[in-house]
Amino acid sequence: MNREDIEKVLQEVAAGNVGVNDALDRLQAADVEDLGFARLDTDRERRTGIAEVIFAPGKTDEQLEAIVERCLDHHAKVLVTRLDADRAPALLNRFDQLRYHAVGRILEARPEREPWCPAVAVVSAGTSDIPVAEEAALTAELMVENVERAHDVGVAGLHRLLSQERRLARADVIIAVAGMEGALPSVVAGLVSVPVIAVPTSIGYGTAFGGVAALLGMLNSCASGLTVVNIDNGFGAGYMAAQICRLVERRSQQS
Amino acid sequence: MNREDIEKVLQEVAAGNVGVNDALDRLQAADVEDLGFARLDTDRERRTGIAEVIFAPGKTDEQLEAIVERCLDHHAKVLVTRLDADRAPALLNRFDQLRYHAVGRILEARPEREPWCPAVAVVSAGTSDIPVAEEAALTAELMVENVERAHDVGVAGLHRLLSQERRLARADVIIAVAGMEGALPSVVAGLVSVPVIAVPTSIGYGTAFGGVAALLGMLNSCASGLTVVNIDNGFGAGYMAAQICRLVERRSQQS
Amino acid sequence: MNREDIEKVLQEVAAGNVGVNDALDRLQAADVEDLGFARLDTDRERRTGIAEVIFAPGKTDEQLEAIVERCLDHHAKVLVTRLDADRAPALLNRFDQLRYHAVGRILEARPEREPWCPAVAVVSAGTSDIPVAEEAALTAELMVENVERAHDVGVAGLHRLLSQERRLARADVIIAVAGMEGALPSVVAGLVSVPVIAVPTSIGYGTAFGGVAALLGMLNSCASGLTVVNIDNGFGAGYMAAQICRLVERRSQQS
Amino acid sequence: MNREDIEKVLQEVAAGNVGVNDALDRLQAADVEDLGFARLDTDRERRTGIAEVIFAPGKTDEQLEAIVERCLDHHAKVLVTRLDADRAPALLNRFDQLRYHAVGRILEARPEREPWCPAVAVVSAGTSDIPVAEEAALTAELMVENVERAHDVGVAGLHRLLSQERRLARADVIIAVAGMEGALPSVVAGLVSVPVIAVPTSIGYGTAFGGVAALLGMLNSCASGLTVVNIDNGFGAGYMAAQICRLVERRSQQS
Amino acid sequence: MNREDIEKVLQEVAAGNVGVNDALDRLQAADVEDLGFARLDTDRERRTGIAEVIFAPGKTDEQLEAIVERCLDHHAKVLVTRLDADRAPALLNRFDQLRYHAVGRILEARPEREPWCPAVAVVSAGTSDIPVAEEAALTAELMVENVERAHDVGVAGLHRLLSQERRLARADVIIAVAGMEGALPSVVAGLVSVPVIAVPTSIGYGTAFGGVAALLGMLNSCASGLTVVNIDNGFGAGYMAAQICRLVERRSQQS
Amino acid sequence: MNREDIEKVLQEVAAGNVGVNDALDRLQAADVEDLGFARLDTDRERRTGIAEVIFAPGKTDEQLEAIVERCLDHHAKVLVTRLDADRAPALLNRFDQLRYHAVGRILEARPEREPWCPAVAVVSAGTSDIPVAEEAALTAELMVENVERAHDVGVAGLHRLLSQERRLARADVIIAVAGMEGALPSVVAGLVSVPVIAVPTSIGYGTAFGGVAALLGMLNSCASGLTVVNIDNGFGAGYMAAQICRLVERRSQQS
Amino acid sequence: MNREDIEKVLQEVAAGNVGVNDALDRLQAADVEDLGFARLDTDRERRTGIAEVIFAPGKTDEQLEAIVERCLDHHAKVLVTRLDADRAPALLNRFDQLRYHAVGRILEARPEREPWCPAVAVVSAGTSDIPVAEEAALTAELMVENVERAHDVGVAGLHRLLSQERRLARADVIIAVAGMEGALPSVVAGLVSVPVIAVPTSIGYGTAFGGVAALLGMLNSCASGLTVVNIDNGFGAGYMAAQICRLVERRSQQS
Amino acid sequence: MNREDIEKVLQEVAAGNVGVNDALDRLQAADVEDLGFARLDTDRERRTGIAEVIFAPGKTDEQLEAIVERCLDHHAKVLVTRLDADRAPALLNRFDQLRYHAVGRILEARPEREPWCPAVAVVSAGTSDIPVAEEAALTAELMVENVERAHDVGVAGLHRLLSQERRLARADVIIAVAGMEGALPSVVAGLVSVPVIAVPTSIGYGTAFGGVAALLGMLNSCASGLTVVNIDNGFGAGYMAAQICRLVERRSQQS
Repeated sequence: MNREDIEKVLQEVAAGNVGVNDALDRLQAADVEDLGFARLDTDRERRTGIAEVIFAPGKTDEQLEAIVERCLDHHAKVLVTRLDADRAPALLNRFDQLRYHAVGRILEARPEREPWCPAVAVVSAGTSDIPVAEEAALTAELMVENVERAHDVGVAGLHRLLSQERRLARADVIIAVAGMEGALPSVVAGLVSVPVIAVPTSIGYGTAFGGVAALLGMLNSCASGLTVVNIDNGFGAGYMAAQICRLVERRSQQS
Repeated sequence: MNREDIEKVLQEVAAGNVGVNDALDRLQAADVEDLGFARLDTDRERRTGIAEVIFAPGKTDEQLEAIVERCLDHHAKVLVTRLDADRAPALLNRFDQLRYHAVGRILEARPEREPWCPAVAVVSAGTSDIPVAEEAALTAELMVENVERAHDVGVAGLHRLLSQERRLARADVIIAVAGMEGALPSVVAGLVSVPVIAVPTSIGYGTAFGGVAALLGMLNSCASGLTVVNIDNGFGAGYMAAQICRLVERRSQQS
Repeated sequence: MNREDIEKVLQEVAAGNVGVNDALDRLQAADVEDLGFARLDTDRERRTGIAEVIFAPGKTDEQLEAIVERCLDHHAKVLVTRLDADRAPALLNRFDQLRYHAVGRILEARPEREPWCPAVAVVSAGTSDIPVAEEAALTAELMVENVERAHDVGVAGLHRLLSQERRLARADVIIAVAGMEGALPSVVAGLVSVPVIAVPTSIGYGTAFGGVAALLGMLNSCASGLTVVNIDNGFGAGYMAAQICRLVERRSQQS
Repeated sequence: MNREDIEKVLQEVAAGNVGVNDALDRLQAADVEDLGFARLDTDRERRTGIAEVIFAPGKTDEQLEAIVERCLDHHAKVLVTRLDADRAPALLNRFDQLRYHAVGRILEARPEREPWCPAVAVVSAGTSDIPVAEEAALTAELMVENVERAHDVGVAGLHRLLSQERRLARADVIIAVAGMEGALPSVVAGLVSVPVIAVPTSIGYGTAFGGVAALLGMLNSCASGLTVVNIDNGFGAGYMAAQICRLVERRSQQS
Repeated sequence: MNREDIEKVLQEVAAGNVGVNDALDRLQAADVEDLGFARLDTDRERRTGIAEVIFAPGKTDEQLEAIVERCLDHHAKVLVTRLDADRAPALLNRFDQLRYHAVGRILEARPEREPWCPAVAVVSAGTSDIPVAEEAALTAELMVENVERAHDVGVAGLHRLLSQERRLARADVIIAVAGMEGALPSVVAGLVSVPVIAVPTSIGYGTAFGGVAALLGMLNSCASGLTVVNIDNGFGAGYMAAQICRLVERRSQQS
Repeated sequence: MNREDIEKVLQEVAAGNVGVNDALDRLQAADVEDLGFARLDTDRERRTGIAEVIFAPGKTDEQLEAIVERCLDHHAKVLVTRLDADRAPALLNRFDQLRYHAVGRILEARPEREPWCPAVAVVSAGTSDIPVAEEAALTAELMVENVERAHDVGVAGLHRLLSQERRLARADVIIAVAGMEGALPSVVAGLVSVPVIAVPTSIGYGTAFGGVAALLGMLNSCASGLTVVNIDNGFGAGYMAAQICRLVERRSQQS
Repeated sequence: MNREDIEKVLQEVAAGNVGVNDALDRLQAADVEDLGFARLDTDRERRTGIAEVIFAPGKTDEQLEAIVERCLDHHAKVLVTRLDADRAPALLNRFDQLRYHAVGRILEARPEREPWCPAVAVVSAGTSDIPVAEEAALTAELMVENVERAHDVGVAGLHRLLSQERRLARADVIIAVAGMEGALPSVVAGLVSVPVIAVPTSIGYGTAFGGVAALLGMLNSCASGLTVVNIDNGFGAGYMAAQICRLVERRSQQS
Repeated sequence: MNREDIEKVLQEVAAGNVGVNDALDRLQAADVEDLGFARLDTDRERRTGIAEVIFAPGKTDEQLEAIVERCLDHHAKVLVTRLDADRAPALLNRFDQLRYHAVGRILEARPEREPWCPAVAVVSAGTSDIPVAEEAALTAELMVENVERAHDVGVAGLHRLLSQERRLARADVIIAVAGMEGALPSVVAGLVSVPVIAVPTSIGYGTAFGGVAALLGMLNSCASGLTVVNIDNGFGAGYMAAQICRLVERRSQQS
């Protein structure tokens, strides 16, 4: 409940339209819908700009269905991440608005997108990193118009990356996805002047330690202008990129 | 060397003004000044928007002095991070333009700042986190006008943070600094709709493991719109925040 | 064998009713029943207030059945934890007293519960944390009357938790269950004045490291009045909460 | 601000004594005193039962003095932990109410203690564990009357512990402190029926890993009724023990 | 090749019975039989007192069969460890001398055992630790007459262990097997004056980290007279215990 | 694009045969073929001496087939590593030139090998290490003539290794493969004067930690002349050995 | 208190010489002398064969002096380990019986040693490992006659070790001390048929991780007949070796 | 002792010039000089091509002096690594042949160097990495003529490295030294066709974990033709590079 809402309640009380006890209840009633096993944060879209995102693992099919239904009641946009392909059909059959993206394991509904110019560029080091890169790209696309991909541009053959330098220079935000030694984001951040979001992936073996080597490489980057998300967290990177683009949009409209 | 520079060389060759061998040397000469022990990347300000930043530990006083001198030859802005207080006077005596900030361990020179409206808010969990928070704030201030601080608003007394909610809502980017369990950025990111940059600090003892506990807390945040930098890397967070503000500025001016 | 028991033996010896050798055997005979593969600690209910708890993994069906049978010979209460659903029917068929709870993976028998007022509140951060939260709640319920649950109140949407503040304030002990960054117990402990038992869960991915991130977050909490149990150890938290309630009960009856 | 406080404000508004804007400010003004570098949570004693505790490392002498001064303005009790001996005299000279305990590195002020019967027993495994044990004991003593110590009762000579069994049985809560393999709390918890709080210490070498071995031993205890705090966190254990005793006291007075 | 063997060759050369080249080949020919994929150390029984032990994982059925065959050509004793139950029948059918022990996953052949008095006692903390304890016991039994077991005597109920004190006191060597916090060997070593070999098992969950918690507990034991083997390495403990018993036997026969 | 290629373009421009824009495109066109999901580095064979190597895990069958096809268009040699046996037939059916090696999980095509004398010796500690050793040996064989193997020569029976001393002394490079404690490369490097490449394998259990114990043993070797690759990275070791042999060959031909 | 002691008390009670209450006190009085900060286990020499060993770090000079005094009251032997050289003189001045060994940091008193034949051999890999090796050797010497040393025989130059083979073969127990990769004990255990106790040291840098690399190497040894103690725990190894020798001695005297 | 030496002894025996016992002693006498605290491997230069290298930490000044003296008796070359500057003068005063290099902390003696063409190139990422790079360069220079350095060419400004591409292409072996994320060796290995030896340094902070981040980055490099040494082990890399150059030299002379 924000300042304006509180102000309204107080004015109603001052005007005698609302009793003290009722006002008290209203001030303490949170913008939360309780499903028993989950508490939907229906105010989140207004507060953070994006409605609740549903992380599928650990939820039963019934729980997922109920949560999606209530989200669609409140919002035009829904985003379910890490949904395995065999769990998608039940939800797709039930709700017409939904679409499933198998590579990125994402289920989503979105209204007609309004044209929007700031661009997100998603680059990935190897073919095996594509699923995480797609999770990032799809998440960003749900909120901003323009997402470009450049896959398999890892640092073992630098000219592959250098040949993309002009495309990268046009982007507002770059998401750089890499497993193994995770050097791609460092090299990218040294080439451009826009924010770079680094995503370590669990690709590799032995001392890759399921993405820890890549994560450490990114956190210790000698390049600046780079921040990092959890291993395989394409969603988090796409969300952050969209947050930045939305900020640019809001401020541009204000200026 | 960018596309335009290459184009010029080629036109000179086509016009017969420049011979093939000379052109060849020019195309391969990098924008680098070699001091023997260091290679100054004099092109970096044009390329990434900010001149080279000098990380003091492991460099001798003589090396630092030489690097700072050459930077001041090329740029009006200089930023030296992690400089211990006893090493500052020698440099301050030698170069009039420099200022030293003891809490953030930063030495910097900057031209008159042009007014610039997007704001960075730096919040920190405890009094002990202030040095890292100041490193972040000073770094951001070097590049953008408006940096606000709110210290000691950790989650053990939530109302301290909630009382800052309006100030946070006005910022374009928030840097959240915390040691120990590192929960502050998660809670902040749940309250706002702008990008949050999380900085774990090495404050704590025992299983804080020098900041690892806070880092893991931030990487695994259940809130979205949050990215992370290395432990105690206030500089990196300030730099990223400035990158985002500069992006907003550029795009606003284009619109 | 406690002081009173030893005293009785000595009095019998002094009275000449018991010979030295017999007394010696009695004093050394432990309150242990040897099944070969297990040694039942039949004295534990008297000593620690609660009968032996059986951890199912690594035990064969035959071993489990034999242990449960002997426990039921000695006690009205039995608690088997981490029992997979496909192993329950055999035991349920054999012993009428038993009930199985699938979500918490607990098999138990208990006598009619006597009314008992101190309350345990179990709060969990996300829907995926419910199985561990239920393990805690069921364990506590076996020993105290009044256990309340509030699920999905994680810190990414603070008002969900704040809307439960009054319910939490009524409890004697709070069990706070969370995976990922594990910040919920810290925030809860900052809001209340009763003991909080924190349970990290293995929910999360990448650097969640199977619950280590949550565990470290809880151990390094900036809030006081919080202790921690092993990852996913709902049982241990429920047991501790019950110990505290039983202590309150005993002392209240003495006063 | 609790429900009663909000109720009062609303009644004032309803009565016309307070305007909407003033009421708005009051509802949002937090119980926080801002010292610039610290935000004192002056409401904490009411909310959690104990006033703010000051963790000394990382704070300057001036910051400490200012915080202590304001705390003494609001409370009769003050607790500063981890204060090195050479920093104590300045504060002792300035404030008459303070006392310093060198072994536990604690500075505190407290009013005349009212008689209070529930007992905390603090047991430690070795002589080297005494400083942490004292930190726990002194913290608990600040809030409850009766704290007993039994040092050097580690499991390598079991009869040392068994000889204390009767004293342990009388306590309401037991704090068990151990470094190295940290087995003491497990053995204690198997002997008694009251809550045991385990404190791992950083005593040991090599694979003791600064207390990690002891911590893991305690988290994986085969005994029940045991929870754990951070390595060397005697304060946290003492605080939790006092929370339990205060709960017992409150409930006893209600019955 | 030992000193005596070299001496013989030299005497043959001195006597002119063997030419220099032949002698050279003999001196360099190792006591090794090359199967291509494995090099049997046929001299090991003479050198270390026990023939080669075969670790089954990672070897194909054909490789195992060939190795066992050659071992039986050279020795009356064969020991195959970690052999899964479904791989045993093929070998049992082929070689009459073999016996398979399912709980300890051991396949072995041994000649009629000669009576031998020093005893090994194997104690384990919980029922789930029995497979590792059996691996240890069976390995020791292959080489010494007298191996006793006492299972489920963990420290959560101390009197279970204390009731075995007399049996333990009779043993020459004690193998103590425990998972979880691994405190059993520490307590045992404090009670007896003979060598104790500690075996951590991978039993446990969460921060048990697959036996690391137990291993660290044992390495940091506050008791003396205790050494440790790898996690789940029942074989290594049994072998060491047998080495000690064989040493005792040899020295006794010399005296 | 190397210096000679750039020189040619510039000469064409100087001669007026090529316009500035065309030259610009040529200079920026990288030696990369874009398949959408992969970017083939077709220049690599010229640049690093060996064509692109394809790491199979994480690539779909269709992706693999397309990449192999394009590689065969450009090169006579192809190397696919970590290809599971069930994925090989489809590729073998489609391309006649390919051969599959099941033990080393390698699929390759190579032209008639020209005789080449420098030798690589591959030694492995145990039978279970053979798959990794074969990956190394096959990779080296693809590029140099002469690769010898000596398996099962681990340090527990030193004479097995010592009996191979002469063969080792003849090699140009030695690859030493070992799991468990990984001591073999240290011992080998102390015996010879040629480069030793150490490969830790994931063979072992418990504290072998999937090859970490062996890796640490090799990195901390007290012997000199030893470098290390990732756990189970037979390919990397074979490739490095071949690099060294090719260097020897090139320099020999120059002298 | 052992069976015989209990029997005596019971007989006194049966004879009417001792009252029930007195008997009760005696049965519960442990063999412990309480110094306040320490509880001397005066019964330990009878129970485990060796008197209490005093670990110096973390104890004050006054505490050490008091403990040593009481030990000398009860025993002819005293062993203080890890005593820094500057703390020794005070104790040496006070008690004539004591001797200090600077390299091994050990302070001890012992009666005239009785001749005793079983031998302990202590081998160390490098000169830097000597302090730990000496701690082991001195500890063993306190209890058995015959301890031999062979330093600097690491595996990088195998013939250094092989030249000691005959000396090793004569020993009853071998203690093998090594830092860095810790391969020495594995190689030694492959050469001999007596128990080998492996001691990892903290010698090394980088990934030696303060002895963890050596520890893991030893725990994962491919050789059998090897057990391990904590990093730098020369005392523990020496104690275990002495335990084995004392066992041999006792059994030899019985036969 | 090599085959030829053994052959000579046997011929002497066959000729009757040497008796069996003398031959036996000779065959078993190792090429080792025993200083008590160290065993000089005087045969190492013949066996591995380079005389013993002395690691200074953990050795006393007296031990160092004695070892250096004996080395100079046997060899013209001596190499002492990790020698702190304050320990050098004593040795320099005593032995005229020695030179000390402060940056690389190396003390060495070497004869007039014979001209030798294969080159080693040492590249380092940052100014702070120079000490380790110098340790590598000086070690290599002791054995081969031609070592080139290029410092401060890290990947954050790629053109710095690309401007060195021609120099790198001329080298026979490249040593790439980097701390922080350690990406330099990966990028270098993608540019050249000669062996690359990667050296992680402990430069960095927070999650650099003293060089572990750089080490993992190098072990998981997506580029081939790269092997790794221990953190800060400049010596090991220089030694390996020299081994490769010496191999090239030997083979070139044979061809």
